[in-house]
Amino acid sequence: MLDYSLLAAIAAVVREGSFERAARSLHLSPSAVSQRVKLLEDRLGQILVVRGSPCVATEAGRHLCRHVEQVGMLEQDLLGAMPALAPDGLGRITLRLAVNADSLATWFLPAAAAFAEAESALLDLRLEDQAHTAESLRSGEVLAAVTDLAEPVQGCRSLPLGAMRYLATASPAFVARYFPAGVTASALCQAPCLRFSQQDRLQLGWVKQQFGQELTLPPHGLPSAQAFVDATIAGLGWGMNPASAVQQALAEGRLLTLLPGAPLMLPLYWQYTRQPLPMLERLTQAVLAAASAGLEPAE
Amino acid sequence: MLDYSLLAAIAAVVREGSFERAARSLHLSPSAVSQRVKLLEDRLGQILVVRGSPCVATEAGRHLCRHVEQVGMLEQDLLGAMPALAPDGLGRITLRLAVNADSLATWFLPAAAAFAEAESALLDLRLEDQAHTAESLRSGEVLAAVTDLAEPVQGCRSLPLGAMRYLATASPAFVARYFPAGVTASALCQAPCLRFSQQDRLQLGWVKQQFGQELTLPPHGLPSAQAFVDATIAGLGWGMNPASAVQQALAEGRLLTLLPGAPLMLPLYWQYTRQPLPMLERLTQAVLAAASAGLEPAE
Repeated sequence: MLDYSLLAAIAAVVREGSFERAARSLHLSPSAVSQRVKLLEDRLGQILVVRGSPCVATEAGRHLCRHVEQVGMLEQDLLGAMPALAPDGLGRITLRLAVNADSLATWFLPAAAAFAEAESALLDLRLEDQAHTAESLRSGEVLAAVTDLAEPVQGCRSLPLGAMRYLATASPAFVARYFPAGVTASALCQAPCLRFSQQDRLQLGWVKQQFGQELTLPPHGLPSAQAFVDATIAGLGWGMNPASAVQQALAEGRLLTLLPGAPLMLPLYWQYTRQPLPMLERLTQAVLAAASAGLEPAE
Repeated sequence: MLDYSLLAAIAAVVREGSFERAARSLHLSPSAVSQRVKLLEDRLGQILVVRGSPCVATEAGRHLCRHVEQVGMLEQDLLGAMPALAPDGLGRITLRLAVNADSLATWFLPAAAAFAEAESALLDLRLEDQAHTAESLRSGEVLAAVTDLAEPVQGCRSLPLGAMRYLATASPAFVARYFPAGVTASALCQAPCLRFSQQDRLQLGWVKQQFGQELTLPPHGLPSAQAFVDATIAGLGWGMNPASAVQQALAEGRLLTLLPGAPLMLPLYWQYTRQPLPMLERLTQAVLAAASAGLEPAE
């Protein structure tokens, strides 16, 4: 068997981002953690953790962390059946997942809460970065992801979750100021839109769907799903918001849809590693249940 | 004078993260953008943009981008006084700011909306990463930041904004399950807490304030301010939430405070570049006004 006290040290440094915090979480001194990492690195003849702020795993380090996580999940299942086996202070395992921001803001949390209530595992959610999701899954940096990437990443299964309905929305004052003659292509080139990040193509995608052409939209950058809704209401710009997140503001007249009856449907997928891990299967069931309650059928 | 058509190409590539998107925003072909960047790089004898996904500026590239931004702000002020000077399709300038997530979720947006209503500039907000805020300000990657970093960064002014009141909160079911005998140090070592990121020390800070010692808290990672509140209500863990964000849930009994009357006050600061930029002064006024409405006096 491998020396798991060494492997646990690597995993803690990567999870916590520093040797000091890893030491606290393992109830060791920082120098003991550092020695363990160093010992493994000497044995393998390669760097496993790039020291920095935060400390990050090298590719080899990520491989080891993924292994620690998978063994941890198998141990948890074993302990469920044989609780007497548990050593004192058995560390809890942490499952790393990537979730797109609008899912985190709308339908995903009930899945996380239902899973966490039944299991002792901890969840480490990351915001999905579309540009890196495939790489994060492939390298084992995350075990699973809610993503708009349909094609299975190497080593992963991809299950359809349903579609999120997006509405192009703006405040009444914003519509009066920027779209006095209606929502035209030339008006859209002047009216500030919101975008979550450089990768956020929803506003451009909706415009292309409606007008058949790519336009240059002047964007405010706003990297928060809730702030996106709040900023639309405050009149900072127009933006594509999940229908469920703006339902109430629409009903109260604090928001208007730019072109009534013109939603954008975004299909979402649950991609997760093919390794046979019962705990991940149970998480998958919780995610599928929450998605079927919170998303619409994909076309 | 410098050749601003070349400088504008660099700035667009960095702002948009790719040559294709930069080309669209400048109404040029990608190869024209690429040639302009290349020309400047050849002239300077150094790389300005690291080609990747996304493309990012080197230190020299960031210097140029900062200069373009500052010239853009001065142009906007000039055009305010002399509108006839405006060339057709003058590009709008974009101000990059860093804001901590809880401020973005609570008091900051009115400042952004008030500023954007009066100015044609676009805002590109980034979530403050405490570990990198000083470096982002120093390098000019952002012009200003809402941060808990009090000491002025080199080249910046630091103005106190007031303090955010945080409350340790959990759902009634969570309290019944994990704190049946009250909130003790040993119960806190078992009860999952929420943390925004590896850098989020609020939960640990509150525990230290209340119990006089550092404890090892088992964390769920949840990188979204609104999801933090929602996850607390859903019973995923306990967490430090801004008082203004949980007021209603507390009044309705969906949340409880862990130790009544034990808030944590976090002083916040507005750090901004000392360059004399009238537009930034106006943004500063809007930020100070919103902070005085949304934050409490610091002790």
